[in-house]
Amino acid sequence: MLCIIDTMYSVAILGAAGYSGQETLDRVLGHPELEVAALGSDTLAGQPVSALDPRLAQIGAGTLPRFVTNDEALASDANLLFLCIDHERSAQLEPPADGVIVDLSGGHRLLDEHAYEQWYGWIHPLPAGLADWSYGVPELLPPSGRLIANPGCYATAVLLAILPLAGSIEPASVVVDAKSGISGAGRSLRPTSHAGAVLENLVPYRVGQHQHQPEIEQALGFPVCFVPHLLPVRRGLIATCYVTPAEGTDARAVLEATYEQAPAVTVLSEGMAPELGRVQGTDAAEIGVFADRATDRAIVICAIDNLGKGAAGQAIQNANAVLELPATAGLRLSGVLV
Amino acid sequence: MLCIIDTMYSVAILGAAGYSGQETLDRVLGHPELEVAALGSDTLAGQPVSALDPRLAQIGAGTLPRFVTNDEALASDANLLFLCIDHERSAQLEPPADGVIVDLSGGHRLLDEHAYEQWYGWIHPLPAGLADWSYGVPELLPPSGRLIANPGCYATAVLLAILPLAGSIEPASVVVDAKSGISGAGRSLRPTSHAGAVLENLVPYRVGQHQHQPEIEQALGFPVCFVPHLLPVRRGLIATCYVTPAEGTDARAVLEATYEQAPAVTVLSEGMAPELGRVQGTDAAEIGVFADRATDRAIVICAIDNLGKGAAGQAIQNANAVLELPATAGLRLSGVLV
Amino acid sequence: MLCIIDTMYSVAILGAAGYSGQETLDRVLGHPELEVAALGSDTLAGQPVSALDPRLAQIGAGTLPRFVTNDEALASDANLLFLCIDHERSAQLEPPADGVIVDLSGGHRLLDEHAYEQWYGWIHPLPAGLADWSYGVPELLPPSGRLIANPGCYATAVLLAILPLAGSIEPASVVVDAKSGISGAGRSLRPTSHAGAVLENLVPYRVGQHQHQPEIEQALGFPVCFVPHLLPVRRGLIATCYVTPAEGTDARAVLEATYEQAPAVTVLSEGMAPELGRVQGTDAAEIGVFADRATDRAIVICAIDNLGKGAAGQAIQNANAVLELPATAGLRLSGVLV
Amino acid sequence: MLCIIDTMYSVAILGAAGYSGQETLDRVLGHPELEVAALGSDTLAGQPVSALDPRLAQIGAGTLPRFVTNDEALASDANLLFLCIDHERSAQLEPPADGVIVDLSGGHRLLDEHAYEQWYGWIHPLPAGLADWSYGVPELLPPSGRLIANPGCYATAVLLAILPLAGSIEPASVVVDAKSGISGAGRSLRPTSHAGAVLENLVPYRVGQHQHQPEIEQALGFPVCFVPHLLPVRRGLIATCYVTPAEGTDARAVLEATYEQAPAVTVLSEGMAPELGRVQGTDAAEIGVFADRATDRAIVICAIDNLGKGAAGQAIQNANAVLELPATAGLRLSGVLV
Repeated sequence: MLCIIDTMYSVAILGAAGYSGQETLDRVLGHPELEVAALGSDTLAGQPVSALDPRLAQIGAGTLPRFVTNDEALASDANLLFLCIDHERSAQLEPPADGVIVDLSGGHRLLDEHAYEQWYGWIHPLPAGLADWSYGVPELLPPSGRLIANPGCYATAVLLAILPLAGSIEPASVVVDAKSGISGAGRSLRPTSHAGAVLENLVPYRVGQHQHQPEIEQALGFPVCFVPHLLPVRRGLIATCYVTPAEGTDARAVLEATYEQAPAVTVLSEGMAPELGRVQGTDAAEIGVFADRATDRAIVICAIDNLGKGAAGQAIQNANAVLELPATAGLRLSGVLV
Repeated sequence: MLCIIDTMYSVAILGAAGYSGQETLDRVLGHPELEVAALGSDTLAGQPVSALDPRLAQIGAGTLPRFVTNDEALASDANLLFLCIDHERSAQLEPPADGVIVDLSGGHRLLDEHAYEQWYGWIHPLPAGLADWSYGVPELLPPSGRLIANPGCYATAVLLAILPLAGSIEPASVVVDAKSGISGAGRSLRPTSHAGAVLENLVPYRVGQHQHQPEIEQALGFPVCFVPHLLPVRRGLIATCYVTPAEGTDARAVLEATYEQAPAVTVLSEGMAPELGRVQGTDAAEIGVFADRATDRAIVICAIDNLGKGAAGQAIQNANAVLELPATAGLRLSGVLV
Repeated sequence: MLCIIDTMYSVAILGAAGYSGQETLDRVLGHPELEVAALGSDTLAGQPVSALDPRLAQIGAGTLPRFVTNDEALASDANLLFLCIDHERSAQLEPPADGVIVDLSGGHRLLDEHAYEQWYGWIHPLPAGLADWSYGVPELLPPSGRLIANPGCYATAVLLAILPLAGSIEPASVVVDAKSGISGAGRSLRPTSHAGAVLENLVPYRVGQHQHQPEIEQALGFPVCFVPHLLPVRRGLIATCYVTPAEGTDARAVLEATYEQAPAVTVLSEGMAPELGRVQGTDAAEIGVFADRATDRAIVICAIDNLGKGAAGQAIQNANAVLELPATAGLRLSGVLV
Repeated sequence: MLCIIDTMYSVAILGAAGYSGQETLDRVLGHPELEVAALGSDTLAGQPVSALDPRLAQIGAGTLPRFVTNDEALASDANLLFLCIDHERSAQLEPPADGVIVDLSGGHRLLDEHAYEQWYGWIHPLPAGLADWSYGVPELLPPSGRLIANPGCYATAVLLAILPLAGSIEPASVVVDAKSGISGAGRSLRPTSHAGAVLENLVPYRVGQHQHQPEIEQALGFPVCFVPHLLPVRRGLIATCYVTPAEGTDARAVLEATYEQAPAVTVLSEGMAPELGRVQGTDAAEIGVFADRATDRAIVICAIDNLGKGAAGQAIQNANAVLELPATAGLRLSGVLV
């Protein structure tokens, strides 16, 4: 066996101490062709990585750099930059002249600058640059260029479930009811993320006005009615999508054909429903397809880990795609944990 | 103050050791005009009530009878009988000649005997009697006669949310996505109710074929697409209902008018969403009404406790109605527990 | 039946928007001889009660006053004052000249002023007044006078379990391992109360240095080794107490005799262990007593709701005691919810 | 780089459809020198692996064999046999003449046959063979020979925490309070594992009489007072151990020295407590060491995943040890999942 070790790509992560930042770091640490150059966190700048998680003291074995500010991480000349920061902060960034950038925030997902005002509540500061970013769902919308907008967690699950069907369903029929674990809301402290408000509870939120709707609409070509709910679980997300297929459309066949070669997406066999438990901690997606007995609707359900396929895992997939690395390098796809 | 104590009504509960049976007992114990005559449980027959729950040793103070078999409870000549047993078992019962019977199972909810075969999977053994039962949602469909079919938990939430709107929404538009805590599945042991399958999970089940659809359809007059999900919570249920109102319909106004005098149902103020936490352990319902920003749909969300308004609480309401007792006697409606 | 309605006592609650404040309000609303005069909350001052919880709009039926500042509530001349505020803030208060005051914080529990510096981390501002407060556990240490220090939640469970045994166990043998739901930490936002840090987790905290130890020590007469853990549950607390009884001591018999007449405390029958589920949402306590098979220790386990018997419920008990109201007035003791 | 591929060892798993069986399969699938020969399950015999978990259809890529009966798996002539079956069933097995056997049940952990009757409740059927099994905790008690008794999950955590201190603590002082997720109780259906009995609950069980006590006692040389509690979490276990160190003993120093070279065990820095969240889904252990402020006790806390280091992970470590494979081959030790 001949082993040629490629030059590794250097990676900087902005917002490395948030949930999606830590998960991205997790994947980078397990990626054979990526190495950490800079970890940005404005709150932990100057501290060792063990301040975020004691496991990093072991894993990094002293080789991981201390946290720097996000500005310093941005200026680090890394080959690959992951933006795991606030939507608005990300939208304000002037992208470095070189290197691949994957933005896990919503700051560059929408082509229509006005949608930012309507759905995010602020005016996009650099609207002229929006067209430079490609929105990447590797299985369906492969990214291109060096600036990649990583889809939102809900949008990822919804698009995996219904984008392949977009041309053969009735647009006005689509309803998406989604449920996510608390990590989808990030690590910052809010009354709604206090455990006392989450445990033994289920909370519909931003009903009919969540900011992932316009990116779903942009990709599908038509709007959908979308309501998210907060689950009392740590990780994982299920999108239950209700669609009326056009006469003669076999939704299951379309989806099975779409994902036949996709290592991260599984269409479950008939009668089997996706479960959070099987995708948590992974970058995999499960899709179930059902016919309604009472009406002419089909129900397509997609389960992902909001921090995996819904964030860090897809960010790595997108980076692999534009860097022409093996599609599954660095992903968490194996295992059958209970 | 003059206090005339009415003769109390005697109560028998069949299936008193199951979840809905125990909750019904809870309400009866707190009801000023009901007293326990017989508690049926085929598994606990012969044992004292403390075998079910040590609190009953205190509460009953020695006055509660031991469990008897369900057949013995059925033969107890009680004035009021609650059936908290299996759907099929209940359907097989020959109702006693006298007294009020509230059936918390699904055995007498559907007028169309064929629907039993299609949705429950068995042929109704006494179809000729189905027309004798009235389906009771006190706020909307007051029960009549002495045989009352208590609605299913999901059906209750869905009907509270959209039955008042049935005439002013597009029937084909209705999608109901519901989520329930584990107690909705009862106390019997199944792989799906094992805590290892429930914690940190969310499981869509009986997708498009749940047996509460036909009772919703029967009450609304048209079918709906209905999918339930199992939540990792003990108690509580949320139904998120998606409807397209007819031109000029103000869904909020209709619902507020409907429930203005209803002590157990609250329409929340604009922008506020129902939460499980506030209805758990109670017989109350919360309803939220929202307009979708992207489509012309309205979203009506109803939260109840599946064992409260969704079972025992509504059973008591129905009994109060036909016995002409005060509407809220015995209900759990007060309090602002955290 | 002759009904003489006493003049009701007026109540002010400081910190009414926190967990223990809201629970105290809940009990006051259900108490036949108490009525709300003032609700203090520095964050909600000026707002209607529905800003805290929409159920209060119903329950108060317009009669509940708007929130005022804590200073205004303090000056309200209520007959009965509940302090549900921060420990240090409470310690700083100059108590009003009249009326009964129940302090749910730790600001007046310790007689030794130096213990505040050691265990709370601040110097008590009014040490001369500490002797004026009586520490009240109604079943064991009945309060006296008009200034009552309500015990901590952990201390309550531990004292119920082992104070009756204090004279007949080996002091050096006592180990207390306690576990509490998240509401024990209050409503304020901290990284440790973020749901992402609580769900699917168990966290030992303030190991060997929790501020409830000195009040346990003060009541028992000797120190104990005490470690609390944070559970992924909303409410409820279990203290597992390990003691070596003196030769000839029958721990079970002592405890059964102690609580024979106590409506809020149940000693479970042999072999039965307390459970959170049965005490949640109540002001009751359950105690289990076990002999260890391998060593000569006895294990006494007490379960309470940290917000019930561990806070608001005991505060009401203490108020009832000094106002000579019925012992269980306003308490949540009934019911057998699943 | 020269790569000599060893002949792989063939593996049979009995009880492969239970929790510990599935986790063992997970580790074997990720182990570079093990390959699956037979998967035993009396309930799934004849079915494909996807009947257990749909992920196995992907992972095995058609190469995994169908389930066979446990007897067939036992007769499969595999080089390495994992027994993931019931304690008593395992005790009855006549071990095959060749190959390495790792028993994850309790059937061969105790040298004293009488302890089985006392703590397990049945008479050991093959007491003469007990001496042939070695009890293996790789970091502390390396296994020897080809018959290995894998420790219980609680025993593992307790021994990691205090076996290194056994000679320098007061034996009579030791109290162990342990808490485990539901998967510790296995996949079989019992009222106590119904989600309705687990969620929002905490249940002490087998108080003072749990069968892991005698294996702890056997390893330490003296009995301990041990009480386990069932947590509302899926996976993970924390043992809080209370000990009185001998004069001059520095518990932290002893533990740090013991685990300095142990890749699967981390002694956390001062003031830091173990958490379930960081060990779930891994084969790692975290240990925290604290001094009590009120008494002379030390508190040593160990967190593991009951199915990882507490079962399958340690089984793989033990197999690696006797087969002289790399110590961490097949283990789940990497990553910093949120």
